[in-house]
Amino acid sequence: MKKFITKTFKDSEAVLAEILLPYQANAAGNIHGGEIMKLMDSTAGVSAMKYSGVNAVTARVDELQFKQPVHIGEHVICTGHVVYTGKTSMEVFVTVEVEDLITGKVTIALTAFFTMVAVNEQGRPVPVPQLEFSNEPFLRALYFEGQRRYEAHRHHGKTSKE
Amino acid sequence: MKKFITKTFKDSEAVLAEILLPYQANAAGNIHGGEIMKLMDSTAGVSAMKYSGVNAVTARVDELQFKQPVHIGEHVICTGHVVYTGKTSMEVFVTVEVEDLITGKVTIALTAFFTMVAVNEQGRPVPVPQLEFSNEPFLRALYFEGQRRYEAHRHHGKTSKE
Amino acid sequence: MKKFITKTFKDSEAVLAEILLPYQANAAGNIHGGEIMKLMDSTAGVSAMKYSGVNAVTARVDELQFKQPVHIGEHVICTGHVVYTGKTSMEVFVTVEVEDLITGKVTIALTAFFTMVAVNEQGRPVPVPQLEFSNEPFLRALYFEGQRRYEAHRHHGKTSKE
Amino acid sequence: MKKFITKTFKDSEAVLAEILLPYQANAAGNIHGGEIMKLMDSTAGVSAMKYSGVNAVTARVDELQFKQPVHIGEHVICTGHVVYTGKTSMEVFVTVEVEDLITGKVTIALTAFFTMVAVNEQGRPVPVPQLEFSNEPFLRALYFEGQRRYEAHRHHGKTSKE
Amino acid sequence: MKKFITKTFKDSEAVLAEILLPYQANAAGNIHGGEIMKLMDSTAGVSAMKYSGVNAVTARVDELQFKQPVHIGEHVICTGHVVYTGKTSMEVFVTVEVEDLITGKVTIALTAFFTMVAVNEQGRPVPVPQLEFSNEPFLRALYFEGQRRYEAHRHHGKTSKE
Amino acid sequence: MKKFITKTFKDSEAVLAEILLPYQANAAGNIHGGEIMKLMDSTAGVSAMKYSGVNAVTARVDELQFKQPVHIGEHVICTGHVVYTGKTSMEVFVTVEVEDLITGKVTIALTAFFTMVAVNEQGRPVPVPQLEFSNEPFLRALYFEGQRRYEAHRHHGKTSKE
Repeated sequence: MKKFITKTFKDSEAVLAEILLPYQANAAGNIHGGEIMKLMDSTAGVSAMKYSGVNAVTARVDELQFKQPVHIGEHVICTGHVVYTGKTSMEVFVTVEVEDLITGKVTIALTAFFTMVAVNEQGRPVPVPQLEFSNEPFLRALYFEGQRRYEAHRHHGKTSKE
Repeated sequence: MKKFITKTFKDSEAVLAEILLPYQANAAGNIHGGEIMKLMDSTAGVSAMKYSGVNAVTARVDELQFKQPVHIGEHVICTGHVVYTGKTSMEVFVTVEVEDLITGKVTIALTAFFTMVAVNEQGRPVPVPQLEFSNEPFLRALYFEGQRRYEAHRHHGKTSKE
Repeated sequence: MKKFITKTFKDSEAVLAEILLPYQANAAGNIHGGEIMKLMDSTAGVSAMKYSGVNAVTARVDELQFKQPVHIGEHVICTGHVVYTGKTSMEVFVTVEVEDLITGKVTIALTAFFTMVAVNEQGRPVPVPQLEFSNEPFLRALYFEGQRRYEAHRHHGKTSKE
Repeated sequence: MKKFITKTFKDSEAVLAEILLPYQANAAGNIHGGEIMKLMDSTAGVSAMKYSGVNAVTARVDELQFKQPVHIGEHVICTGHVVYTGKTSMEVFVTVEVEDLITGKVTIALTAFFTMVAVNEQGRPVPVPQLEFSNEPFLRALYFEGQRRYEAHRHHGKTSKE
Repeated sequence: MKKFITKTFKDSEAVLAEILLPYQANAAGNIHGGEIMKLMDSTAGVSAMKYSGVNAVTARVDELQFKQPVHIGEHVICTGHVVYTGKTSMEVFVTVEVEDLITGKVTIALTAFFTMVAVNEQGRPVPVPQLEFSNEPFLRALYFEGQRRYEAHRHHGKTSKE
Repeated sequence: MKKFITKTFKDSEAVLAEILLPYQANAAGNIHGGEIMKLMDSTAGVSAMKYSGVNAVTARVDELQFKQPVHIGEHVICTGHVVYTGKTSMEVFVTVEVEDLITGKVTIALTAFFTMVAVNEQGRPVPVPQLEFSNEPFLRALYFEGQRRYEAHRHHGKTSKE
């Protein structure tokens, strides 16, 4: 495992992509929302592992929004990036895009924030490299959003002993 | 479809239960978080359908917390209840418990809030019965929590045109 | 593992519940009978483990009756109870009910008797607590039915050396 | 669909064969009993379709016996034959054999009797060709066993209005 | 559907990527070769659909080489490109790379040539845009390789009436 | 493990057979080509293990031809035979037949050549028994075809250091 001080948004980029198949459908014949959440969870894990250089486990999922249903046969591209870091945790912003293979049109189907914790081989939390602050407006917005949520849950954790 | 004015927390109770199998594992040998999210999504759907008397689709997931890992062979019990209602949406509080079959010990592994929207056969939102307010402290807390989140997202929706 | 002399029907209650999905369908578009049998087998296992306090393996299935087909999207509730006990074996009566989520109507889709054997960590049969006899007519009927079947197979086993 | 008067045991022979994979395992690491039952159910269906020339649905399973556990990687051969016929139903005797691919040794892991009903495209029962009586001792034994069970359930059906 | 005369190697680029899970393992505990072939087949289909603008079906697979085993938990990236075109068929070169998420090291695990045929909604072959010839050495080599194989099978087809 | 000098085509015969189910479908509603390739790969493995008496891994697949689409509910019979042997490798010819269960009509859906390598418990190649040459014309043709391909790849391997 390598030593590092800081890392960038780009260092954490993870992309998983699939063609959705009939076995992933729900009773209504669309793709089961849980199948997409599973893909998002895997993508968040890849992003966190690439960023931290160690294993990572999911601690929280927030603001997971379904913007449109996803259908059998669609090409989904799921992307994850670390947008804020705590001491041992990483906020990973995950988006799911659907590409129409004939027209090339791409639309966003879901987004969510996953909080991943870096762990060693015994499953104990370990420190992560800190995220370099970027002046790119979209990344700044995600950084402050991640920071706000991190502070809220840390405070919550302290008072509730959860 | 039946007509109704109000319904109770109890009317929306949904319980799905499974023994988790090796095909649901992740690469680390624990149960894949996405498999549990899929179970939670199904449970939220059952709760919303029982409560509203019509089909329901997932719009959001919030504050999904992994409190402990879940293992192959464990008996999981996933429970959903409607805890707040908007005009066409229902906030469903979902908990996942793990029961040790030998000792009978039960622990909470995950919790989350799912926002479900009642839809007709064309997939358009339809009004839901309003939730009766309860004075039971735990239900009141969940009700106000649901209301707070509902107001936040409604406001967010208005300003961002999302 | 706890020590016990007798246990009741209620001590062995096991409930697994699922929403049936398209991947569980057969070629005719109904749910594959084998998927339901798999659910019943898991339920019998949970019931036997709760009752005996140790692991259990399936030895026989008898009188498994399909009373109606089961469809994609249906909510199935599978229940198991120990209804008779031999020295190391338990007769588990398993029922599969289908609930219509909109109307709340419940119908019985399948029933069966599973013979489960309690085993230790080396897979060897171990004694089980004896079932308390109940005067509740339905339980008495199941008890005598289980006893009749147990005697038949024990005899059969002796003569055929199987 | 062809017209016929009688058919033989051999006309109904069905063989399905698989290598069992890790996704079919139970929590103990052996193959899930329900996966094997699913394979048996498919085999009984193939046997009944070949014999009757129409579709067939499972009505009952009896005397399903687990004679030995089945493991990941094993080669299982599941065979079905019609051994007795009612007016619209067929008793299918199903065996599951396990072959060791290195030594060639074959052992019987499970056997069961499936009662299959021939149905037309509306799912209604239709008459099946009658099974030719054979003087081969093993087939005679299975025939009388099938007849005994058929009579028992027909009688049971009459008295219990099930 | 758009009209076109020629297209480039880049227009056909397709990338599917997955984390391989335990349910995809073979009995030896590695990833089942057939699971990887399934991923390659999906990728070839995406490449052919993007290139041709219509649906595509697999006609042949040639020179599929396993260069190293693939393991549970590995990140596989499967890439497809059209490298030669016949009248209605496309030769798609598919590679499977394995990325170590901790070290970032990438190795090639498999390669293959898939022959895909563009089809209309009735499943009949339709003409595809011709591939622009490139002077980039690697692409030229693949082009001539595709041409050689195309000629061989066309000839074979003529003489054998297959 | 047994010692042997030569073996016959028949010694290597492997047959796997399945009813194809909806979970194996692609987005177009036919059976996913990759599912059939997975079945073919398993069959080649069984054939090679029976022939060599040791484990075997897939090294190459060549000339895999889809002659007709395969549909949900069809009965597929996949057969493998060793048709040529190198020092440690076996060329396995695999065919997939589809049987109509009502009419009994059988058609060939796919064929392919799999190159399997016999390996010991450390995964290292080990010698295989040599295939007895047969004068049966079909087997001779397959033998010479296997020999031609074996020579081509061995030569290719030498010059390209692949």
